[in-house]
Amino acid sequence: MGYRVAVVGATGLVGQQVLRVLEERRFPVDELRPLATSRSAGRQVEFAGSSWEVGEATAEALEGADFAFFAASSDISRQLAPVAARAGTVVIDKSNTFRMDPEVPLVVPEVNGHALAGHRNLIASPNCSTIQLVVALKPILDRFGLERVVVSTYQAVSGTGAAALDELEAEVRAHLEGRDHAPEVYPRPIAFNVLPHCDRFEAEGYTLEEWKLVRETRKILGIDDLPVTATAVRVPVRVGHSEAVWLQTRDEATVDDLRRALAAAPGLVVRDDPGGAEYPTPLEVAGRDEVFVGRIRRDPTAPRAFWLWVVADNLRKGAATNAVQIAEALVAAGKPAGR
Amino acid sequence: MGYRVAVVGATGLVGQQVLRVLEERRFPVDELRPLATSRSAGRQVEFAGSSWEVGEATAEALEGADFAFFAASSDISRQLAPVAARAGTVVIDKSNTFRMDPEVPLVVPEVNGHALAGHRNLIASPNCSTIQLVVALKPILDRFGLERVVVSTYQAVSGTGAAALDELEAEVRAHLEGRDHAPEVYPRPIAFNVLPHCDRFEAEGYTLEEWKLVRETRKILGIDDLPVTATAVRVPVRVGHSEAVWLQTRDEATVDDLRRALAAAPGLVVRDDPGGAEYPTPLEVAGRDEVFVGRIRRDPTAPRAFWLWVVADNLRKGAATNAVQIAEALVAAGKPAGR
Repeated sequence: MGYRVAVVGATGLVGQQVLRVLEERRFPVDELRPLATSRSAGRQVEFAGSSWEVGEATAEALEGADFAFFAASSDISRQLAPVAARAGTVVIDKSNTFRMDPEVPLVVPEVNGHALAGHRNLIASPNCSTIQLVVALKPILDRFGLERVVVSTYQAVSGTGAAALDELEAEVRAHLEGRDHAPEVYPRPIAFNVLPHCDRFEAEGYTLEEWKLVRETRKILGIDDLPVTATAVRVPVRVGHSEAVWLQTRDEATVDDLRRALAAAPGLVVRDDPGGAEYPTPLEVAGRDEVFVGRIRRDPTAPRAFWLWVVADNLRKGAATNAVQIAEALVAAGKPAGR
Repeated sequence: MGYRVAVVGATGLVGQQVLRVLEERRFPVDELRPLATSRSAGRQVEFAGSSWEVGEATAEALEGADFAFFAASSDISRQLAPVAARAGTVVIDKSNTFRMDPEVPLVVPEVNGHALAGHRNLIASPNCSTIQLVVALKPILDRFGLERVVVSTYQAVSGTGAAALDELEAEVRAHLEGRDHAPEVYPRPIAFNVLPHCDRFEAEGYTLEEWKLVRETRKILGIDDLPVTATAVRVPVRVGHSEAVWLQTRDEATVDDLRRALAAAPGLVVRDDPGGAEYPTPLEVAGRDEVFVGRIRRDPTAPRAFWLWVVADNLRKGAATNAVQIAEALVAAGKPAGR
């Protein structure tokens, strides 16, 4: 028994990872439809040991698909996702387009899988930096409550896409050879630099990335007024977002309490040995599907205050893996029915 | 009128910057004594258009110096600084050795220059990440008070020294060529990675760098129980530390209030235009002597809460420039008397 699965944006960084994760996790694919914009249609992608030609992403190409993973631009999602959903395809959308729509569940399965109930064939997968944050916050929220969350991010260049990775490499090479290389993807050089600027600037001096982190976290955790705030920073890392998270719990807790709650949480690995320099870093965590947490410690200057260091592969748990896990949760619940 | 000036650690990254800053700021040097450990003695350094042979750092070599800038290891500071100070040399020490000694002023001239009064010939210059933080906090503290400070750092590799810069470059080259390069200076690769680990691990799961930031900030601002906490992270940047600072003021303030207070503060440059993507980055700020602040905005989820993004050249304002400014303040006050 299997499914007809479309992947829109199959030639992009996230789309490629969706194909890899579907294969690795043996998602029951009966028929694969790799799709992309007309610019990339005709290219080949690899899946399950074969090459597949990429078709153009149109409403017709999606007809009859059981699942469609959207990992393309917001424009394509806006145009095609509702059409496909109405036609009966379960759409799992990675773009920002529908995330805050009250009719659309925004889901990290191990955090709020219950939100999938009653979906209308359109499900949003959150922003990469949000996913790893809520996986770490959820077990703390459930046991001790949350009073405040302050996040500083260290976000990888792959979050911006393949062109940004090329720019990082070109800048690094130019730098080592003493040449200049004018940035095109980012407004400033990213090699040997950090930019407190992810996505475009919006209201109140916040970037869209910072607002996403605030709004999506509240929606997923189901607390409309959760006090969460962020500074989002791009760093010259290829894959793997890191977050320095300062939080206050509502109830009293010890570091050991937090460590136990985190260690027992699904999809989460605690790597923490303060004495022995054990902590997660993005280079080590790249390629993994879990969220990694270390540097768990008290802030002795504030009541019920703690620090966490949270790292995950932004292309996998932050994007492809989470989308595939949403599909797996639906399959486990028997909807849609397989063939 | 000028001074006999010794620079201990003259061949190191900070010592080299001390020589450059002394020259650029036309510090009245009558006689220069570049000194280092026996390993580096005999090498040449450049100052004021000439080459100078580096002598071995001994008590004898320091005798009769008016000023001695210590930019070497903590061991050398522990061994030689008190001897030189007792012999009448004004020692400005960049190491961690004496910073928390209640008899030793810990000084950022534009923040607590008054602490120089009554010094006993031994003055400590703070840790790089502390200096830029207190320059940004001081004008806010003075006008609106401070209730809480939460800092996440993005620290450059030059803070660790020349060997770490070499390691970063070797790792970057190996990475681009698809080779492995085992780290030696850091416990993990720093190229295309971030490490939540600056200096050694100490009590309560904090690193020494994090404790320095807490303790030194309190001493410089003169508030023993100021609630300040930090996560210190090394990033693959060559020069320039950045800090994402979340703070709460004691009194009500607007973003414009904060911007005005910061813009009027000595040694500080506001680079902030939220709409136009104007903000400081380490690559642009390297080589400058000021502390740069941007991304000034409200956290609407907490009372009197704000974010700042603070960037400075860790080798200059974070080390050499601050040390030379301490000497300039003493010269302006007429102590020691010149020749």
